[in-house]
Amino acid sequence: MPDQDSIAPAAPLARRLDGVSSSAIRDLLAITQRPDIISLAGGLPDPSLMPADRISTVVAEALSERTTLQYTATVGTTPLRETIAARAGAHPDAVVVTHGSQQALSLLSQVLLDAPGEGGSDVVVEDPAYTGALQCFDLIGARLHRVPLTADGLDTDALEGMLAAGLRPTVVHTVSTFHNPGGVTLSPRRRRHLADLAERYGFWMIEDNPYADLWYDTPPPAALATYSDRVISLGSTSKILAPTLRVGWMIAPEPVRAAVELVKQSADLCGSTLTQTVAARLLADDGWLEEHLTGLRRVYGERARALSAALAERIPRLSTTHPDGGMFVWGTFTDGTTTSDLLERAVDEGVAFVPGAAFGPAHRSSLRVCFATADPRTLTEGVDRLARAVDASAVR
Amino acid sequence: MPDQDSIAPAAPLARRLDGVSSSAIRDLLAITQRPDIISLAGGLPDPSLMPADRISTVVAEALSERTTLQYTATVGTTPLRETIAARAGAHPDAVVVTHGSQQALSLLSQVLLDAPGEGGSDVVVEDPAYTGALQCFDLIGARLHRVPLTADGLDTDALEGMLAAGLRPTVVHTVSTFHNPGGVTLSPRRRRHLADLAERYGFWMIEDNPYADLWYDTPPPAALATYSDRVISLGSTSKILAPTLRVGWMIAPEPVRAAVELVKQSADLCGSTLTQTVAARLLADDGWLEEHLTGLRRVYGERARALSAALAERIPRLSTTHPDGGMFVWGTFTDGTTTSDLLERAVDEGVAFVPGAAFGPAHRSSLRVCFATADPRTLTEGVDRLARAVDASAVR
Repeated sequence: MPDQDSIAPAAPLARRLDGVSSSAIRDLLAITQRPDIISLAGGLPDPSLMPADRISTVVAEALSERTTLQYTATVGTTPLRETIAARAGAHPDAVVVTHGSQQALSLLSQVLLDAPGEGGSDVVVEDPAYTGALQCFDLIGARLHRVPLTADGLDTDALEGMLAAGLRPTVVHTVSTFHNPGGVTLSPRRRRHLADLAERYGFWMIEDNPYADLWYDTPPPAALATYSDRVISLGSTSKILAPTLRVGWMIAPEPVRAAVELVKQSADLCGSTLTQTVAARLLADDGWLEEHLTGLRRVYGERARALSAALAERIPRLSTTHPDGGMFVWGTFTDGTTTSDLLERAVDEGVAFVPGAAFGPAHRSSLRVCFATADPRTLTEGVDRLARAVDASAVR
Repeated sequence: MPDQDSIAPAAPLARRLDGVSSSAIRDLLAITQRPDIISLAGGLPDPSLMPADRISTVVAEALSERTTLQYTATVGTTPLRETIAARAGAHPDAVVVTHGSQQALSLLSQVLLDAPGEGGSDVVVEDPAYTGALQCFDLIGARLHRVPLTADGLDTDALEGMLAAGLRPTVVHTVSTFHNPGGVTLSPRRRRHLADLAERYGFWMIEDNPYADLWYDTPPPAALATYSDRVISLGSTSKILAPTLRVGWMIAPEPVRAAVELVKQSADLCGSTLTQTVAARLLADDGWLEEHLTGLRRVYGERARALSAALAERIPRLSTTHPDGGMFVWGTFTDGTTTSDLLERAVDEGVAFVPGAAFGPAHRSSLRVCFATADPRTLTEGVDRLARAVDASAVR
């Protein structure tokens, strides 16, 4: 038998993996799979709102073409690239279909960032940040610089200060619209400011944008790509059609796109012709898609309002965002409550959330709640349970 | 507009990408998509032999469960892991489902190999080698060491000599069974020898094994994993069910498996619940699967024999392998013909193959032909055209 040392992962990777896994929170959240727990911890869309019958019908049609069974191009099928480009006002050649937008983040990290042994790269992330992006940047060994998120999104004035002080990032990553976990949206003024900074200091913006179609009352501001050529835009079908398709995409200028294609070829040869065909047909069916999205917007909007109202009424010490779209509310206790401690008590009461520390070390008094998979009555019950956990913590 | 320099990929990656792309051959092979060309160049299975109706039925059934639409575990669905483990005689916990076995190669490269700036790693590959593996190892910047392939597979005596001379590889990669492109199979004696060397010198064997089920008359030797614990086994549904499922897998000992899971989480979160459900149901249906595989074996066996016979009769100067399974014949001209030159003339005659140089610099007089997608009559016609190209080259 080989001994443990000799079969461990390569040492530099092992060091980086240490930073990637945050097992304490993960272990606690594993408990939240129990049926008696109302989990507001997940970041999942609601499967009961996904178009199962329509996907099934399109699969049957698509499989009558034998090419649907075969490998496809590394950059994705032509109909899907054309459909994505048309929706984004881009050229189809600029589109690379990816295995969810997570793969786009992973490929971009490999293409744009230098490994530590090669000098390393500086990356600006939001604080709090999307954990999937943090994982990719951590894995490549990038130096992370956190810029606060405010009610108007990434604080571009704070970023400007860091740039003026000498920071030269390769990439600024932003979930510009209906932020995960922050629940906020980058304002048009700040989009312009960020684009100006990118031109001045020569960095890439990665606009990670899976929630933009999930607005409740009014559409979000125009995408960052309308302000600058220095934007790599990421999108996904996971939140609007179904995660099982594993269809995301990147829209990127040519030298980056070409490098991403080569790295993707090595990463997995190509995506699934079948699920890309399904995605293309559903996204191209304007009438059906609009009706489907209208339904999602109505249901998620109701849930967001129910959650916000319950939190405001039952836990006044929690200051929360009031999202205009997406799937998340971010809350911060004004009394310094440590949310990783609160989670234990909350699980005892039968409700779960994600402690803020999962999204950045500064957020020990914050939490993320996802309202996407629960109806208003369940959300209200979940908040009642959370309020009991908060009250019990205060009493102790 | 950003200038070209500032938007180029990170410099160290750009250097490595130079080695990864072999554009001259790729450009020439792009021509072979023309309908008047008989392409023996592709490495694709025949879509007319794939179970489209069966997949369509299983998709419809699977989508009636809402969980099929959702994200799944990073390591894959439990039914699929159990089915793969049962077929391989392994424990389900050791299985990681990947996006084709190409993703397994990519993840293993990241987990096992150090980047050049971190000291780098030595990797042994077969000569000729599977290009998808070469791409992964090149991209991470590994130092490649080529060991000749003979009629009995990887020449383990040659490897032993290199090890005795001081080589200490981290990984030895082998397509042990029905080699791509070599068409040969590692003999039981050499499997034992390779396993002994792995124990003695402490390297990992990656057994890349997508073709093992495609034997024609008799099953191949027992897998490398039956000889040693130092084996990471890769498999795939692409050659036996359909590439569109994008379902491959890795079976690996625990420290490697756990590291692969973390890297895969960053790479793409998880695979498709839908296509994994389809793969699980088809692989677990023993009676159906055996009948389906019997059909594939019969058809591919007929094609292999037709191609071999035609090559032997029409191009006696080409010494070829005579595969017992898989999809490829490897041929070497005994008169020093340069196959990249021959390809141009072959395309003029209406037939294409892959020149040996694509698989290693030593193989300028070799070529790979894939017989999987053409019937015996077409194969014979393709060989006639190739023979005319060879004759024309000789005359010049």
